[in-house]
Amino acid sequence: MPIIDLAKRAWDHNFELDPAVRSLLDTDFYKLLMLLLIWRKHRDVPVTFSLKNRTQRVRLADEVPEAELRAQLDHVKALRFTKSELIWIAGNTFYGRKGIFPGEFIDWLGGLRLPGYQLEARDGQYHLSFSGGWAEVTLWEIYALAVIDALRSRAALARLGRLEIDILYARAKTKLWDNVLRLRKLDDLNLSDFGTRRRHSFLWQEWVIQAMAEGLGPKFTGTSNAYLAMKHDLEAKGTNAHELPMVYAALAGDDDAAVAQSPYRVLADWQELYDGALRVMLPDTFGTTAFLAKAPDWVAAWTGCRIDSKDPFIGGEEMIQWWQARGQDPKTKLIIFSDGLEIGAIEQIHARFNGRVQIGFGWGTNLTNDFRGCPPNGGSDFDAISLVCKVTAAAGRSAVKLSDNPTKATGTPEEIARYARIFGESGRQAHDVFV
Amino acid sequence: MPIIDLAKRAWDHNFELDPAVRSLLDTDFYKLLMLLLIWRKHRDVPVTFSLKNRTQRVRLADEVPEAELRAQLDHVKALRFTKSELIWIAGNTFYGRKGIFPGEFIDWLGGLRLPGYQLEARDGQYHLSFSGGWAEVTLWEIYALAVIDALRSRAALARLGRLEIDILYARAKTKLWDNVLRLRKLDDLNLSDFGTRRRHSFLWQEWVIQAMAEGLGPKFTGTSNAYLAMKHDLEAKGTNAHELPMVYAALAGDDDAAVAQSPYRVLADWQELYDGALRVMLPDTFGTTAFLAKAPDWVAAWTGCRIDSKDPFIGGEEMIQWWQARGQDPKTKLIIFSDGLEIGAIEQIHARFNGRVQIGFGWGTNLTNDFRGCPPNGGSDFDAISLVCKVTAAAGRSAVKLSDNPTKATGTPEEIARYARIFGESGRQAHDVFV
Repeated sequence: MPIIDLAKRAWDHNFELDPAVRSLLDTDFYKLLMLLLIWRKHRDVPVTFSLKNRTQRVRLADEVPEAELRAQLDHVKALRFTKSELIWIAGNTFYGRKGIFPGEFIDWLGGLRLPGYQLEARDGQYHLSFSGGWAEVTLWEIYALAVIDALRSRAALARLGRLEIDILYARAKTKLWDNVLRLRKLDDLNLSDFGTRRRHSFLWQEWVIQAMAEGLGPKFTGTSNAYLAMKHDLEAKGTNAHELPMVYAALAGDDDAAVAQSPYRVLADWQELYDGALRVMLPDTFGTTAFLAKAPDWVAAWTGCRIDSKDPFIGGEEMIQWWQARGQDPKTKLIIFSDGLEIGAIEQIHARFNGRVQIGFGWGTNLTNDFRGCPPNGGSDFDAISLVCKVTAAAGRSAVKLSDNPTKATGTPEEIARYARIFGESGRQAHDVFV
Repeated sequence: MPIIDLAKRAWDHNFELDPAVRSLLDTDFYKLLMLLLIWRKHRDVPVTFSLKNRTQRVRLADEVPEAELRAQLDHVKALRFTKSELIWIAGNTFYGRKGIFPGEFIDWLGGLRLPGYQLEARDGQYHLSFSGGWAEVTLWEIYALAVIDALRSRAALARLGRLEIDILYARAKTKLWDNVLRLRKLDDLNLSDFGTRRRHSFLWQEWVIQAMAEGLGPKFTGTSNAYLAMKHDLEAKGTNAHELPMVYAALAGDDDAAVAQSPYRVLADWQELYDGALRVMLPDTFGTTAFLAKAPDWVAAWTGCRIDSKDPFIGGEEMIQWWQARGQDPKTKLIIFSDGLEIGAIEQIHARFNGRVQIGFGWGTNLTNDFRGCPPNGGSDFDAISLVCKVTAAAGRSAVKLSDNPTKATGTPEEIARYARIFGESGRQAHDVFV
């Protein structure tokens, strides 16, 4: 005889909010690594992070009710790091190192209050931004993206019946497992989940990383999500992002020479804090080719590099040649591939580079939000969109990214033109951005 | 905060039995139609039903623990028709007819006690049989098969981890839905679930029929499972099976002419009870070609025919020609296809016969137990086997089936030879039996 849990039923009738973001730790771990640097060096620099939906055909403000979005953002704003979370951050081993985060920083994290948000719906899109001191604002990026992606999933789920939802997830699980079986065949695979910001939902991301961990064993090397890493005893992965050189360059103001040096200033500050496997650079903010050409020799001693906006085959070969030119053995170097990966691309990149260089994959959107072909009666309601939340202003200036792919460039046209003059156009090539 | 239901948890710790068969109504509806005939005409004829595993490579007694099998059979033996079930049987409309089952029969059903069973494990196989008066014994067939199939699934599930089970069912659901999408394309489709006896489990069959009902709408025309028909307000489907002519022939004893007439005696008795859509004959017990050649003209007036052991294309053409030869319009006649159907065969049969004759599909094993390719790490542990429980003796004689496919013939060699002399070999052809 099925026994109804009457307390649960009554609670469900009055359900208030199912949080899209569960905890302040429910973010990419690299935000914490970057936050320590920001907190030490530039905590009060005024910055603005702004949402940008690159998939304009999807009218987010029509799909996601504003009241729900505000409720979720308000929930995030009310979150605090819990004592257990702070103990984990302080006591856990990251990339083989204990005690990365100093006690003073942990204390500051414990008192962290996220600032408010500016939200407006216009022409079917949300204009959402966060302004304040860099150290207070930066964490909003991942929460904002995860909230919107989750609410978009929920809106689409609300259009399905009970069985349809069942089929949707059955198909998504089937698809994920097909990928697991293909990935198993790749020798020396080193693949981590980088999909927090683009996840279908928190629970789906959690299912995915558990399936990957069980299905791939040691070939699944961790998750970028700090909360899930803590909960499931996985390695927390990730190092740094574009916001560091973007804000550093803005801080250089009108001094073109200082702007040109800013990417290396980031690395210099970074290596004061972190060594070993944490020294993975992201060279594409103002163009990889320009970055490598002018990099000081000590940069070549770094452990590795993340290739983001450049074609992975071109970018991988470029890195190998550059390390060789700088007298380094590529076989000892690590390349992380993380841009818009598909299962087929992972196999091809692996075939091309495995054995020539250490490789790692940070699989994001198409790991935690691949529902293409899964809706039982067709349609693309669950297809992931290219949503970002980037620093757009810093220290009173436009924050600029050139990227290896000019399609991804951000900043005012004047500043983009100025940065292009400073760094040159070499090696930059436009291609479509899907996710 | 997740709240644990402590009562459920404590109950689960002491869980006794999860019944494989939920109710006496959890059987094929045609067993009830046949039971009324048996009860009226031959209730006390002594019969024996015996299990036969045609898939000898699967050592059932090694896979399914005998104690579990006994516990499940004992549970079935203790079942009684409930008042609500009897009211449904009495009051429901079947094939458009109300009041098929007379009150005296309903009263008898209410008092029905299944007789005991004889069970022995030998050489890795179970020898399971049921003996007694025909009316008491006959229902055991479906329960016995459903119990063994469910226990075999459970034994295989017990070898999987939690995630593996999740993937298994995700893949099976994905596969079922792929079939739904293909079936949707077939105009005028009339497809019912005939898979109770071969089901993976009760809950899986229930999921399947709900998915079919929602996915196919009116193209899914019902289920043979009376309990699920009642529970989900679906049409209960099915008419009659081989046991009728087999026992009727045994009752004819040494009288060869009476044996030859027995298939038509069944139909004559049947049409005393049922008319319209319930007049669907099963002509293959002793060979379809022989049956049709000697059938009285009134047989041609029946609504339709179920093609079982004969190749469906040969059998379908044979029926159409026979109806035409008997002055009937095939377009008004119904052919039910139900033998070992695969999705591809359904499409091909539909393409061949739709529009030329009314067609219906009774989809069994590969609807309710198609887990081929679904285990997450491979293997065939969940592949359905060809398990039957047939009447093997009646009125002190061997019960015989010749079938259109001699591979499926049952009975002692002497009696099979005698029946073959009586009915002839015309139109019978051996082919492999998969399910």
